[in-house]
Amino acid sequence: MRININADIGESFGHYRIGNDSVIMAGIGSANIACGMHAGDPTIMTETVRLAIENGVSIGAHPGFNDLWGFGRRQIRMRAIDLQHLVTYQIGALMALAGAQGARVTHVKPHGALNNMAHSQDDVALAVARGIKAADPDLIFVANANSAMTRAGESVGLKVANEAYIDRRYDDTGYMLSRERDDAVIHDPEEAAEQVVRFLEEGAIISTTGKRVEAEIHSFCLHGDEPTAGVVLDAVRKRLAAASIEVVTLPELLG
Amino acid sequence: MRININADIGESFGHYRIGNDSVIMAGIGSANIACGMHAGDPTIMTETVRLAIENGVSIGAHPGFNDLWGFGRRQIRMRAIDLQHLVTYQIGALMALAGAQGARVTHVKPHGALNNMAHSQDDVALAVARGIKAADPDLIFVANANSAMTRAGESVGLKVANEAYIDRRYDDTGYMLSRERDDAVIHDPEEAAEQVVRFLEEGAIISTTGKRVEAEIHSFCLHGDEPTAGVVLDAVRKRLAAASIEVVTLPELLG
Amino acid sequence: MRININADIGESFGHYRIGNDSVIMAGIGSANIACGMHAGDPTIMTETVRLAIENGVSIGAHPGFNDLWGFGRRQIRMRAIDLQHLVTYQIGALMALAGAQGARVTHVKPHGALNNMAHSQDDVALAVARGIKAADPDLIFVANANSAMTRAGESVGLKVANEAYIDRRYDDTGYMLSRERDDAVIHDPEEAAEQVVRFLEEGAIISTTGKRVEAEIHSFCLHGDEPTAGVVLDAVRKRLAAASIEVVTLPELLG
Amino acid sequence: MRININADIGESFGHYRIGNDSVIMAGIGSANIACGMHAGDPTIMTETVRLAIENGVSIGAHPGFNDLWGFGRRQIRMRAIDLQHLVTYQIGALMALAGAQGARVTHVKPHGALNNMAHSQDDVALAVARGIKAADPDLIFVANANSAMTRAGESVGLKVANEAYIDRRYDDTGYMLSRERDDAVIHDPEEAAEQVVRFLEEGAIISTTGKRVEAEIHSFCLHGDEPTAGVVLDAVRKRLAAASIEVVTLPELLG
Repeated sequence: MRININADIGESFGHYRIGNDSVIMAGIGSANIACGMHAGDPTIMTETVRLAIENGVSIGAHPGFNDLWGFGRRQIRMRAIDLQHLVTYQIGALMALAGAQGARVTHVKPHGALNNMAHSQDDVALAVARGIKAADPDLIFVANANSAMTRAGESVGLKVANEAYIDRRYDDTGYMLSRERDDAVIHDPEEAAEQVVRFLEEGAIISTTGKRVEAEIHSFCLHGDEPTAGVVLDAVRKRLAAASIEVVTLPELLG
Repeated sequence: MRININADIGESFGHYRIGNDSVIMAGIGSANIACGMHAGDPTIMTETVRLAIENGVSIGAHPGFNDLWGFGRRQIRMRAIDLQHLVTYQIGALMALAGAQGARVTHVKPHGALNNMAHSQDDVALAVARGIKAADPDLIFVANANSAMTRAGESVGLKVANEAYIDRRYDDTGYMLSRERDDAVIHDPEEAAEQVVRFLEEGAIISTTGKRVEAEIHSFCLHGDEPTAGVVLDAVRKRLAAASIEVVTLPELLG
Repeated sequence: MRININADIGESFGHYRIGNDSVIMAGIGSANIACGMHAGDPTIMTETVRLAIENGVSIGAHPGFNDLWGFGRRQIRMRAIDLQHLVTYQIGALMALAGAQGARVTHVKPHGALNNMAHSQDDVALAVARGIKAADPDLIFVANANSAMTRAGESVGLKVANEAYIDRRYDDTGYMLSRERDDAVIHDPEEAAEQVVRFLEEGAIISTTGKRVEAEIHSFCLHGDEPTAGVVLDAVRKRLAAASIEVVTLPELLG
Repeated sequence: MRININADIGESFGHYRIGNDSVIMAGIGSANIACGMHAGDPTIMTETVRLAIENGVSIGAHPGFNDLWGFGRRQIRMRAIDLQHLVTYQIGALMALAGAQGARVTHVKPHGALNNMAHSQDDVALAVARGIKAADPDLIFVANANSAMTRAGESVGLKVANEAYIDRRYDDTGYMLSRERDDAVIHDPEEAAEQVVRFLEEGAIISTTGKRVEAEIHSFCLHGDEPTAGVVLDAVRKRLAAASIEVVTLPELLG
């Protein structure tokens, strides 16, 4: 049995440093690298690609809204066509910087507010999917399971990787509990690790009430910017190893 | 006999429109398309690529400093490594947007202050050349004849297209007269056209004092943002036709 | 009888020119000057202040979202506290540039998407009102009549100028018809001028069906970026003169 | 005997945190607050003003180039008029945000590359001085002693505070040793403290060779972003206290 773990990474900018990229990179299978709009700059992108290569981690673009102040976490209502081209633009920039080191961009995961909007809004999801396909039709689209993104990705003919979150609890519809709920986030690394294995073995998302929502999860997302990210990642890796589940890159899993 | 004409294009941004892109595009061989930093946005870039395709014009990236306020005309002293990656970033973005329409980016010409600095500063020229090669080693580097750019391009193994300006007069060293001189710019379209043919037939840049500076010019640059650009372009095309000199794309000329 | 006419102005940016500022400025009473976020730059702001002074036009800040690509016409969902400070920031910048010429900023009108959101969303309207008051409690808040803005302005103790649009038709609730309707915009300058006088004389907004919505309009907004702006302004000025209605600045009207 | 200590502060941006503002603020007399161009955002500016007020620290604007990626440390060659207005813009923005809390901006110190250029280039220094005076002619201009800035400040009639650096060694002309020299920076807090007192008691900058350059230093600058900033500040405060030299705000010293 094999699974992917992905994390957002390379979100420093110029003089500003953020995240524990070297720690995270050592434990994941695929990296979502910021592309200069919500975070990241051309030099940071290059360094992050290098770190991914050194760690055998597959490289993904992590396009976000052009909003450094808001770190891409503010919803911006732009025309679908602008959004589509903005996504292609960012992926292309990373493709060139990765290619300069002999590496390839093999997946895409939208960032922050863009990911949230694409989760539930069909037009946004479709703009993102089209933007990805325009950059490279072989790219894997990492999408929340059962979301507008998975539908959009499939409708344009992209390979879609279903994603769940390592440290989030789920409701009966198979979506994450709102962060406004006290029990939205799993703080105990062991419990998080346990949930990962359970979802995999059940072939389903299990809600807090015990309800099953069928879903073949391909990739689990780690919130790399949490202070506990390293500890959680460690616990999950150990638990997966104990269950003989191998962590691989997205192209290895879906290529 | 064959020659290329290039022009900067796609320099609108969002709600702001600038230039006479459709007129210019109809008469040139190669377009230098702004890449979102000094001008251009992902949607403008896409529309400009489309216009180039429709006109059989070859597509080039026109990277500039990240300085929309200054329109890329302000010198910015950044680390060479940042500049190199900034150039690759912009080329990559355009490559993806062009690829989405089945087109390829085949040349690169730096914009404004970046072009000026690269003309005379070896470290800047080298950073640009490395940034181009990193994006794609087959790209043609359009460079002022006899400049630090030509040297840098050759040193990294890029194909270099020597460039002269349609509407500028030259000094005895083979470089353009400073814009501060009254006679720097040729305002008469017929005289500009005449100079183009003369440089080609002589295989040299001819200065205002009549001095020859050997130079095989591959491409003549039209300042597309001048109000007279269309008229000048027309005169040059007619004069070239009369001399049986064909205007071709850069890949046709140097590919 | 006296009335104010306002228009958005100073929306050029760097190398990019937009609008007919000198024509518009000659006919209005108050100018809403872009503050560098959605449009305008420090030099454009300074030149626009100078033009206002020369024309005896009162100066207002026209704060918008920090979104040059979208020209401030994209909704951005930011925290209320960030929005409040963003508004104060822009007003302060203009206050200093105006003060340098011995002029004062006397009113504020939000731009584009910010104005639209503030029209109907109480939290956005309140953030804007607080941001204005923080900059200067004597500022006049130009607000769509009967909107969340008027309520917010009054609740924080600002003087509010009720605004209607010269060239827009209204529905029975007293708000503008959606631009998606064919009859949303008045294209005939004479009809626009007639509506202005009618609203004033009736002391009410009159809908397309003839319904009256009581509203003391203090200021009529001209869309300065329409090609017909000059003609419309002319027609309105003549019609107002014929009705012996004087066009004054906002401080003259409400100070 | 009285002296001022200043430090750059409020250089976080959005999601990015930098510096030890609360530690630094507790020990200085005057704060140079970033104004949103090279660092800082409207909310950070507001929070930093609050921190200054709480600590009885006087508030200064710290305008920089509009270059977040380069953190204002890249030289940008813009027209003097653009630079002047850019400086006024930033000061005005901070004035409004400070005024909202009942505080006043009482000094200005340019940031990074702008400070370096203004140190030696008369046209840059003059543009900065004019930009400051335009915002408020009562502002104190914090300037490297014996630099183009002091000359420019005096020529436009501003009060100038002569500045030296706590942790930098000086050459025989009274200017800092280049950072490229191994002995440019004083790493020992006690030695830094000793130099501060010596400069004050001598009424002169003392070079590494022992040469005196007459200079009445009003303010010593602490590099707040060094990890040792807190320790250095502590040592200096103790040494000043031992010499009965009081640390005061700039308006207290020069008002």
